[in-house]
Parts: sequence; C-alpha cells; structure tokens
Amino acid sequence: MAWYEVKGNDADTVVSTRIRFARNLAGFRFDKGLTADDARTVIDRVGKALGEADFTRTDFDKVSAVEAQSLVEQHLASREFAAKKGPRALFRNDNKSVSVMACEEDHIRLQCILPGLALRDAYRFACECDDALDAALDIAFDEKLGYLTHCPTNLGTGLRASVMLFLPAIAAEGGIPSLARQLAQIGLTMRGLYGEGSDSRGCLYQISNQVTLGLSEEEILKKLEDAVATVIERERALRRAVSGEDAERRADRIHRAEGILRYATLISSEEFFDHFTDIKLGIALGLVTSISDEALNALLIRCLPATLTLGAAKPPESGTARDRLRAELIHNAWEV
Amino acid sequence: MAWYEVKGNDADTVVSTRIRFARNLAGFRFDKGLTADDARTVIDRVGKALGEADFTRTDFDKVSAVEAQSLVEQHLASREFAAKKGPRALFRNDNKSVSVMACEEDHIRLQCILPGLALRDAYRFACECDDALDAALDIAFDEKLGYLTHCPTNLGTGLRASVMLFLPAIAAEGGIPSLARQLAQIGLTMRGLYGEGSDSRGCLYQISNQVTLGLSEEEILKKLEDAVATVIERERALRRAVSGEDAERRADRIHRAEGILRYATLISSEEFFDHFTDIKLGIALGLVTSISDEALNALLIRCLPATLTLGAAKPPESGTARDRLRAELIHNAWEV
Repeated sequence: MAWYEVKGNDADTVVSTRIRFARNLAGFRFDKGLTADDARTVIDRVGKALGEADFTRTDFDKVSAVEAQSLVEQHLASREFAAKKGPRALFRNDNKSVSVMACEEDHIRLQCILPGLALRDAYRFACECDDALDAALDIAFDEKLGYLTHCPTNLGTGLRASVMLFLPAIAAEGGIPSLARQLAQIGLTMRGLYGEGSDSRGCLYQISNQVTLGLSEEEILKKLEDAVATVIERERALRRAVSGEDAERRADRIHRAEGILRYATLISSEEFFDHFTDIKLGIALGLVTSISDEALNALLIRCLPATLTLGAAKPPESGTARDRLRAELIHNAWEV
Repeated sequence: MAWYEVKGNDADTVVSTRIRFARNLAGFRFDKGLTADDARTVIDRVGKALGEADFTRTDFDKVSAVEAQSLVEQHLASREFAAKKGPRALFRNDNKSVSVMACEEDHIRLQCILPGLALRDAYRFACECDDALDAALDIAFDEKLGYLTHCPTNLGTGLRASVMLFLPAIAAEGGIPSLARQLAQIGLTMRGLYGEGSDSRGCLYQISNQVTLGLSEEEILKKLEDAVATVIERERALRRAVSGEDAERRADRIHRAEGILRYATLISSEEFFDHFTDIKLGIALGLVTSISDEALNALLIRCLPATLTLGAAKPPESGTARDRLRAELIHNAWEV
C-alpha cells in the first residue's frame, strides 16, 4: 500500500506531511555545470548509498512521459525534475513514503511524505535516510553556511517542511489571502496543491517554511507545527459555526456530490476535484460514511490523467474514454 | 390507487390520455349569467345524476386554497375553475380517472383521464358517465349545432381529446416548433404541461383537437390517434439514432440525474422537473431500473407544491422545508 492509501492523524484537515532535504556531493559541479558523465556517477553513488535493494530506481531520461507525469502526480518527482534533460533518476521505497531525486536542481533531493499530520515522524524517517547518505557520501557542507545548495533559498539546513491542509471553510469565507499574508509574516509560505504557481483545487493548501538558513531544524519544525495547529483550529471552528439552513444547504451540496460521483459515468479531472472537496468535508462532518477518507485521498492521485492511464488495463484513447475510466475508478472506491 | 400510479400503454412516450366533454343544462343561463342560487341547483342536479355514492364532491367556494391548487396539479380541476368565484364543485371517482367540474365555464366539464395511450378506453368511460348525465338531466342540445357551450370553440361534440406526450428527443433537436406548426395545419394543438400558455417543463407536450364542430367524435379520435402514432414513432426513431459518444454522454446525464435525485436533500420543484426528463428517458432506454415509470409519473404530481404540502404529516413552513420534504418523497419513491 502506498502512503496515500493509509489513514493519517487529523485527517479532517490534513492530507499529508512532507519533509525534504536538499544535499549535494562535494567535488561535483552543481546543476547545469554537471556533465552527463558526472551526473551518472552521482546517480549511481546515491543509489548505492541508499541501498539498492530497498529502493526502486526510475531513470527519468529513459522513462515514458506518462510514467514521469504519474510520479509527479504522486508527489514523488517535481515538475522541474520531469521537465529537465540529461541523466537523472528517482529512487523510492516500497510504500513511496521515502524518495530521492538524484540530479534535480541539487544532486540530492530527499523527501519523506506521510499521510495526515506527522511532522515528527516524517522528519525522523527523512533523517534516517539522510544519515545513510551522509555516512556513505561526501556531502558538501560549510561550517558557517551549513549544507551547500544550488539555490541560496535552500542553504543551511536544506530543510523544507510542509503540510498539505484541507481548508474548505476558510476558503468559503474568503479567508485564504489574509491567512497567506499572516503566514508570510512569520516566514511561512502557503501554496496550492502542486507547489509554486499552482492553483488551489480541492481547497488543498500547502504550508511550508520559506527560510532554511539561520534557524535550527527544530525551530523550523516548531514554527510550522504551531502555525498548522492554529490554522486547523480555525478551520474546525468555522465548520462548526455553520448552522440552521446554511448547514442544511451544505449537507445537500455534500450529498449531491456523493450522488454525482457514484452515478455519473463520465467524470473529468476538474469535476472530480470540485466534488472531492464536498465529499471530504462530508466525511469530516460524518455526513458521508460510504467511502473512507483515505480511499478518497487515494482517488485524488489515482484520478489524475497519467496515473489513471497507467492504472488502466488498456490505455484510454480519447478524453471520453479517460472520463469513463475515471468514473469507474471512483465507483470502485465506494465500499457499498 | 390514483390513475397516475398505474402503468399505461406506450409509457416510454405517453404519460396520459384525456377525454373531456363540455355540457350545459337547458333552462339555465351560461357562465357569468348564472346566479349563485341557480349554480347551486346545477351542482346538486349534476351530483345526483352522477350518483353521489361513487363520487367525492369538493365545493370550491369552501375548499382551502392549497386543496384547490392540489386538484389543479392532479389535472382534475382547471386553473380557471380554481380561480373563479361563486358556487362550483368538483366530483371525482375513487381513482380520480373520472371527474366532473360543475359550473366551470360550462355547467358541466366531464373528463376521463387514464395513464399511457388509451384514447378508446378514456372515450368509453367518459361516454358512460356522459350517458348517465344525459339520462338524468336536460342537456342543452341543438339539432344543427350539437351540444351548446359557452365558448364557440367547444360547440358541436363538446369533445376535447388530448394526449400528454413525453418528447425529449424531438425537443433536444429543436423540433417542437415545427411539429406544433404541422399539427396546427391538421387542426391539432400542441401545448405545455398545464394547458394553454404553460411552458413545456419536463419535455411534456399535450396534443389535442382544436375543432369540435363539423367533425364526428370518431373523426376527432381517429385524427388524434394517427397524429400521435406518427409523433411517437418519430420520437422513438430519434432516441434510437443516438449512438457512440453522444449515447455515452446521454447515459452519463441520465445517471447523474439519478444520483442527484437519490442523494440531494433539498430539491426544488423546478429542479425535479429537469431531472424527471432524464430519469424518464433513462427508464425508457433501460438505463434506469431502480424506479418504475409509474412511480416517477406519480412524483410528477406529488412533488408539486400544493399536493406536496397536503401529503405531509406537518405542513412545511418554509421553502427549504418544502424542498426537504420533496427530497424525502423522491427518495421514498425509489425501490432499492
């Protein structure tokens, strides 16, 4: 089972938690300065350091476009990593919770992603993997600056901690822009589902630390943890505050979304996202009991075009065929 | 069981068939010329002639507005009858298939309404009732003009025969206006669900004879019968002609309607009509099997505001309460 098929903590408001470290090998040039031969050497060394037995390697200069796109959809590879040229590889463990991009912008982009709110666990697993790499490889490190990275925004700890939140009530009252400003003032960034520049489909918002330098890893985690706790409380309070006819209209909207997802035979990716929001809120409110939150979260990934295509017995040959396949996948996710 | 709860012939395209006779009593003034006392006399004589034991009498000058409106919704009383002042009464048999408005525009408006296509049966039952009235009452009749009526358009036979058709495929291809023109050329009228001036919600269209004078009753019936048969064939051919992705999109639309009606907890009358069309078509196409056509037809009447209110244990006190009640009624109509 992939990490996204498992129930996490605070699932009513948190979809997933991610810890990412940026690392580079000493003695190799960074990013575009790296020759293809050197890139291959870096990839092989990273693979060996991780322990090839526990990780699946995918060479992105050889992989099909649809497979690469599916790995992006699963949050295992960045869009930039999929789009760039030259030798580069993704290593991932069995449940896809720990993965390493070799030769992305940095030589090493290590991440641990877990369901629900799990900052400490994700940090611990990421550190274990980082320790293994550190023990086996000569990592570029400066006593004063900390870990050296291609982009100065990652200097220092090289740590990016992020939490994917589900905030339909804050979004409904138009509170997202002001929340983003408040978070920016304390050095946190709020973004849409697929990172920088992406929109906020499904009322999913990612909060992460902006600064990696001048703060300890513990300070970064603590700040994010506190901010997330506050946002979660606000979201929950707003949900609880809905009453009377407003609550009845919300319930109606939720049940309609359930009816459509269970009955429609053609469903576009965009439409799924719209209904996802209502169903997920319905599960949190106890109004929808016919599908589990983790099954719904898994659909969030499985319904995306490339992952959908890869999961099919026969690749869909038209938009309609894809919409039909998506509807079947959704029907199957329901338990009764 | 009311007539509209029973399955009729050609239910895929025909909702109901209606035969109506206009009659007046000799020796009484027509319409507005009739005094209140004379109106009461007419009503009592009509009631006695019908046989009071077999008919339920509703005095419209005493009935509540919601009850009057419900009888209009059930096609037992005309809107004009409900709206006018003075003594007037409705007589109806147990299954509501035979009814008489006493002191509508004419002293007697007798109708038989049956589910599906049933021109001959409806005509036979209407004639039986008409014969009973004729035997007991002095009906105004002129050797040359036939039955005398308030409005010249009803002179002669006083017969209006009409068939309520369900024509979603003709409507979808925009064929309704030209069909109405063709029918007009042969002396037939096409109107929306609730008679003259009403719109065509639910893709329901009523075809009836325009002329009552100069044609025998048999000629009127035959002409309508032939026209309806042609329209039915055209509707069926158009439904069959949908194929490929168009058929798939139609099926998706139908299943969505089913999902929404089964899951939504607030449903307006207007919205019900929209989905009614798709569900009814879905039943005809064999795509919807979870509700019977007659149960759906019954909803068409039961979901209307006044009938809905009368059927409730407690009258709904707001629009939202009514929409909630309607949704519950719809859920209960589903078999599984």
